[in-house]
Amino acid sequence: MKTVIESVPNISEGRDRVRVEEIAAAVRAVPGARLLDVSSDASHNRSVLTLVGDAAGVAAAIRALFEAALPRIDLTKHAGEHPRMGAVDVVPFIPIRGATVEQCVALSRQVGADIAERFGVPVYLYEDSASSDRRRNLADIRKGEFEGFAEKMKDAAWKPDFGPERPHATAGVVALGARAPLIAYNINLGTRDLAVADRIAKAIRHVGGGFRYVKAMGVELADRGQVQVSINMTNYRKTPLHRVFECVRSEAERHGVPVVGSEIVGLTPADALFMAAEHYLRIEKFSSEQVLETKLLEAEE
Amino acid sequence: MKTVIESVPNISEGRDRVRVEEIAAAVRAVPGARLLDVSSDASHNRSVLTLVGDAAGVAAAIRALFEAALPRIDLTKHAGEHPRMGAVDVVPFIPIRGATVEQCVALSRQVGADIAERFGVPVYLYEDSASSDRRRNLADIRKGEFEGFAEKMKDAAWKPDFGPERPHATAGVVALGARAPLIAYNINLGTRDLAVADRIAKAIRHVGGGFRYVKAMGVELADRGQVQVSINMTNYRKTPLHRVFECVRSEAERHGVPVVGSEIVGLTPADALFMAAEHYLRIEKFSSEQVLETKLLEAEE
Repeated sequence: MKTVIESVPNISEGRDRVRVEEIAAAVRAVPGARLLDVSSDASHNRSVLTLVGDAAGVAAAIRALFEAALPRIDLTKHAGEHPRMGAVDVVPFIPIRGATVEQCVALSRQVGADIAERFGVPVYLYEDSASSDRRRNLADIRKGEFEGFAEKMKDAAWKPDFGPERPHATAGVVALGARAPLIAYNINLGTRDLAVADRIAKAIRHVGGGFRYVKAMGVELADRGQVQVSINMTNYRKTPLHRVFECVRSEAERHGVPVVGSEIVGLTPADALFMAAEHYLRIEKFSSEQVLETKLLEAEE
Repeated sequence: MKTVIESVPNISEGRDRVRVEEIAAAVRAVPGARLLDVSSDASHNRSVLTLVGDAAGVAAAIRALFEAALPRIDLTKHAGEHPRMGAVDVVPFIPIRGATVEQCVALSRQVGADIAERFGVPVYLYEDSASSDRRRNLADIRKGEFEGFAEKMKDAAWKPDFGPERPHATAGVVALGARAPLIAYNINLGTRDLAVADRIAKAIRHVGGGFRYVKAMGVELADRGQVQVSINMTNYRKTPLHRVFECVRSEAERHGVPVVGSEIVGLTPADALFMAAEHYLRIEKFSSEQVLETKLLEAEE
């Protein structure tokens, strides 16, 4: 694939394995896309699908997903720990290779219009696709959840970007949007003192004066007798892993605390790790074209 | 591709572009393999092809290469700066993914027997495939070159592993063998003093008491006013980039010299860079399965 766009739709079914598999099978059957992963969480009653393809392939996969999910998920009967507003709750579009955020914004608008018309589900555009600042943040859109949306949508401020001005009876509403790849990155500290992790989290996160593309909080790891700075890297190209790691290390040192390790939760683009290697090994004129696997991927059609 | 074996055959033609392209086209036409790169050197009068595939695909590609190269390359008329003993001079087999060195040794023996029988070219097994220590080193096998081989082969010690006991009239002999991926890695020092680069090269290379899988020498970079430790990493899994880099940095410091940068020449497996990121970021329980592109490659059939 020359162009690789990733989509990570979240659906509101995480308990009935047969239904999840039927929905996954519908996505797998789309020729222009590849389903890489399905993970279900029973307590959240929610599943996350990871798929890739070019723009047309991803659009077809999301359409197939709705077609399979709508008859199988009824939100009037849904309960789970995770907040949700739709049978297909949220669909991010992420540029991985040979695609820009702008192309993913265009794709989200095109898919949004298509979904609203075909399935009668109201569509909200979020993150980089948002039509106003108020709609950038998914949590703001989702507030009120499925049960509250009929009321919420009476407010003109919550008119959807596409589709009817009332929620779908069983499928609610959906948020679609483009965003940069997100890396969940945690740094573990050799202390039991949560205040240290909290203070470092505040120092590195955007809202506290830290890095622009960092969200962070302190977390206790009771079983390890350690604390953790739990980080969401929302744009690793502009705020790279190694810069955040070195900043955390320096702040921890000031408290006399060592960094004992870090962890990447879920998937990361290879680039994020190449950037760290390039930094520490001081590699001059590095290009991902020098990586054998990049050549391999490019050789595939 | 689930299994990825790389082969980097060197052929003794680097001037006649049409012939090189005809040979490349024959490899490209093999369904189970992908030709990733062709680079020709006119002064060496030699071309290097980089191809990947599973065992059967690589075997078929090497057969197609011989079929196309033999009628087009006549060593009795060949001249160039690089030593050579065959029209197809050397064919390494390198495990990249889902394959072991042992499987590549088996593949080299199978391809060797096939080539000897089909084309009447004597085959020497080298590196990890060598039938004796004396044949591990390619330079030892190649000594005497094409012109000297008829004489060299009269010695029972140089009986080929497969094929006739005299060189092919126009194609000479060929070396085939399995080896680990090789990374050409150079570290640049902020001094004009070649003696410093030489001393560090001696310290890190195997023969001088250094790392087992490192070959190194000092090189002058006249245009930059710097010197370089030029390194061949012959097994990056057992002797990783970051360990060599840190050792060079420490040795350079002892001479009051800074490391100004490093460079990777040609291709590197992604793993070698992941290992560096893992080391410096202190990542716990890292797996290349966490890399999106790895998932992508595995999704391709």
